[in-house]
Parts: sequence; structure tokens; C-alpha cells
Amino acid sequence: MTGTRGKFITFEGGEGSGKSTQIKTLSLFLKGRGIDHIITREPGGSDGAEELRTLMLTGDTDRWTAMSEALMVTAGRVDHVEKLIKPALEQGQWVISDRFYDSTKVYQGVAGGLGLENMVNLQKLALGDFTPDLTLILDIDVQKGLARAIQREGANNGNEDRFERKGLKYHQALREAYKAIAMSESDRCKLVDASGTIDQIADAIQQVIEPLIAGVGD
Amino acid sequence: MTGTRGKFITFEGGEGSGKSTQIKTLSLFLKGRGIDHIITREPGGSDGAEELRTLMLTGDTDRWTAMSEALMVTAGRVDHVEKLIKPALEQGQWVISDRFYDSTKVYQGVAGGLGLENMVNLQKLALGDFTPDLTLILDIDVQKGLARAIQREGANNGNEDRFERKGLKYHQALREAYKAIAMSESDRCKLVDASGTIDQIADAIQQVIEPLIAGVGD
Ligand SMILES: Nc1ncnc2c1ncn2[C@@H]1O[C@H](COP(=O)(O)OP(=O)(O)OP(=O)(O)O)[C@@H](O)[C@H]1O
Ligand SMILES: Nc1ncnc2c1ncn2[C@@H]1O[C@H](COP(=O)(O)OP(=O)(O)OP(=O)(O)O)[C@@H](O)[C@H]1O
Ligand SMILES: [Mg+2]
Ligand SMILES: [Mg+2]
Repeated sequence: MTGTRGKFITFEGGEGSGKSTQIKTLSLFLKGRGIDHIITREPGGSDGAEELRTLMLTGDTDRWTAMSEALMVTAGRVDHVEKLIKPALEQGQWVISDRFYDSTKVYQGVAGGLGLENMVNLQKLALGDFTPDLTLILDIDVQKGLARAIQREGANNGNEDRFERKGLKYHQALREAYKAIAMSESDRCKLVDASGTIDQIADAIQQVIEPLIAGVGD
Repeated sequence: MTGTRGKFITFEGGEGSGKSTQIKTLSLFLKGRGIDHIITREPGGSDGAEELRTLMLTGDTDRWTAMSEALMVTAGRVDHVEKLIKPALEQGQWVISDRFYDSTKVYQGVAGGLGLENMVNLQKLALGDFTPDLTLILDIDVQKGLARAIQREGANNGNEDRFERKGLKYHQALREAYKAIAMSESDRCKLVDASGTIDQIADAIQQVIEPLIAGVGD
């Protein structure tokens, strides 16, 4: 252990953009470089956050208002950060999370109608100045991403319907919101073209990660 | 039914200040005046909020950070407001709640160290401009209030310890914080001297309620 704090990297992007796929690839890459790391995801990621996730997902779909959901997700996030993420970083491990607070800004704030600024303020209030060192936003044409997600799930289990129901406009709004975050926080966020092959995207991500690795032990 | 919106009245104050006692008395008074009302309490008060309350209270006492707790309580409050309080008010019923958002400001914000302003902002963010029509803050000397609460519970079941552990300073900070809220929101809040007899306090409360009843059907 070098005594250096680990790096906190989050993956964001719409359904089927390739987050889970690229996290696996990045994990292998970091392993090859000898970088100790853990992989986690939201909502959930710690015991308390997983219980909140379960409470949120049980019962009718309209059981919770959008605002209750945003607050529960954020309560879980605070738990995730305090119990898992910060302790790991302090031990020098890197932490890779499949979604983090930008998902709340985009899904609840923009798509869910609670307002982007409200959700930005909520995250700030809950987490103070704790932020990812790097956020990789996987950007892909909405129809292409949905086609990937539908293909993954199999076309006959109702997922096609699920995506159709939300509508293209909904998914396009998410994409635009992610782009806006990438623009307004360009130091932290990197928009990654996720339309290529798995290897092409992995290469692009590794180029962004490289300088962070170089910084280890500084 | 007159079609008039009901009034939303909240009771606040430290442990043993007499909130539950005075709510019972007020309920009889309102009944005598023919005012249809419901009584509820926080944390909890609706199905979702009660489940969050249970999740919050199970397990180790330090299981949740203060911030996770504040967010969970607030998520429950939104549920309580949307599912129970607003629908009742819209039907013309009055709603009396044993604690509401001032408890979060005082307990989590001031006593819990999260900051009064942060908790004020959180309530605003979560509830928008929904506020009680009237908040009765029962104000009593800390030692007198604690003596009442201890007497109620019986001195030998560990409650004396529980209060002792928090310390007088803690309870005094709560009292001061409630007073500060009463001062800064004097339109909504009424500080009630809760050191007298049950009947004396009930009289004082009824005098504050009277103009609200007169307003019914206006
Ligand atoms: N670059 C790519 N080209 C083609 N297919 C891909 C690519 N990347 C991922 N896929 C496939 O697309 C599907 C969705 O990818 P993945 O599960 O990684 O997306 P995700 O962003 O994690 O989605 P979700 O938000 O639903 O979890 C998977 O079947 C995956 O194998
Ligand atoms: N004015 C009063 N004089 C003397 N005793 C009182 C008075 N009001 C209430 N009590 C008694 O004091 C105890 C605490 O009162 P009560 O339970 O109403 O307080 P509370 O504010 O609801 O407390 P908590 O915050 O713990 O729920 C009870 O035993 C009650 O009977
Ligand atoms: Mg995934
Ligand atoms: Mg009580």
C-alpha cells in the first residue's frame, strides 16, 4: 500500500450504452496494471442502500412519488459513500461504480420532472464536496442503445415494451441531460463515444484513465 | 362538507413537553365544535413512511449516518404529505400531526450537527411551499420536561439513563432551536408555555385555534 488515496470512477449513460460491459473491461485493464480496485453499483452497493433499493422496488410502480424515490436513493447513496466507497478509497483502493449521482440528476431531475437544479442541490446537500475523480458518460444514439439493451434481454420478455412505453423522447431527454452535465462539469466528466466496438470504446476509456494511473504514488 | 380546505396543525417540542397529551385534548375540543379531523404523527403516518421508520429503527443505533436518517425521514414525510395529509385537507378534514418538519430541523439540523439551514433547505426542496397552517411549539424548562417524560415511562426501565446520556446541554440546544424557529417564523408558529397544568395549556392552545375555526367556511 502506497498510502495514496484511490481514485473514484463512475460510469453513466442510458440503458444499453455499455456501462456494465466497459466496467468489466476496465477491471481487467486495471488488474493488468496492478491497481487494486472494487466494483460497485447504484442504487445499492452497501447493506443499507440495498435495503432501501428493495423497499423502493417492492409494491406497485406508483407506490412512491418521484421525490420520495429521489430522497431514498440519495439516503442510500450517503450510506454507500460512507460505508463502502470512502473507506476503500482511504485504503488506497480504486472504486468503480456503475451509476452514481448523475443518474439521479438525469433520471429524477430531468426525466422525472423534479428539476435538474433541485437534484444537483440535493446531492450537494447530502454529500458535501465529495465527488467522483472521473465520470465516464457513455454516449450513444438512443435507438442504437435501446436495440442493444433489447437484444441483451431477449425480444420476447416484455423489455421491448418497457422501452417503447417510455418512448424515444424520454430517452433522448436523458441523453441530452447527460451531455449537458458533461459540458458544465468538463473537469470531472468525459463524454465517451459509445457507438463503436467494445474494443474501440475500451481503448478510448483507457486513454482517459492512463493519466490517473500515472498520478498514483505522486 | 363546505368545500373548504381543512387546516394543518403540527405540534412540536422536546420530550415530555406534552404534545401527545395536548393533541388528545385538542381533539376533544375540535369534536365539540363539530370539526372533522384526523390525528397522525411522524416519523411515519402513512404506509410508506412507517416502513421507512421501521427500516430506520432496526439494527444498530449507529447503523445509519445522521444524513441518511434525515433523508429517510424526509422521504417518509413526502409520502405522508402526499398520501395522507393533502388528501384529507382537500376533503375538508383538519389534520393534527405529532411532530412534522421542524423536528428534522431541530433534531437532525441543530442537535445532530447537520446544520439548521441545510435541513431547512432540504424540507423546502422536498415539500416545495407546503407548510402547516399553524405550528404549536410546546416550550418547557428542560429538566421539568425530562422529569415528566421519565415519570411517564417509569424510572426503572432505562429511560432515565437514555435522557441522562444525551445530557442537559443537548436538550437545551433543542429548546433554543425551537425558540429560534418560533421567532423567525412567527406567522406560522406559536410558542406555548407548557409549564402549567394540562388545562391551562389546553386553554392557551384553544385561544390560538379559535380564529382558525372562525375562518372555516369563509
Ligand atoms: N460496443 C458494443 N457493441 C455492441 N454491443 C455491445 C457493445 N457494448 C455492449 N454491448 C452489448 O449491449 C448490451 C448492453 O450492454 P451493457 O449491459 O453493458 O449496457 P449497460 O449500459 O450496462 O445497460 P443497463 O443500463 O441496462 O445496465 C449487452 O448485451 C452488451 O453485450
Ligand atoms: N401539563 C402537564 N403537567 C404535568 N404533567 C403533564 C402535563 N402534560 C403532560 N404531562 C405528563 O407528562 C408526560 C409526558 O407528556 P406527553 O407524553 O404528552 O409528552 P410528549 O411531548 O408527547 O413526549 P414525547 O416527545 O416523549 O412523545 C405524560 O406522563 C403526561 O401525562
Ligand atoms: Mg448495466
Ligand atoms: Mg408524545
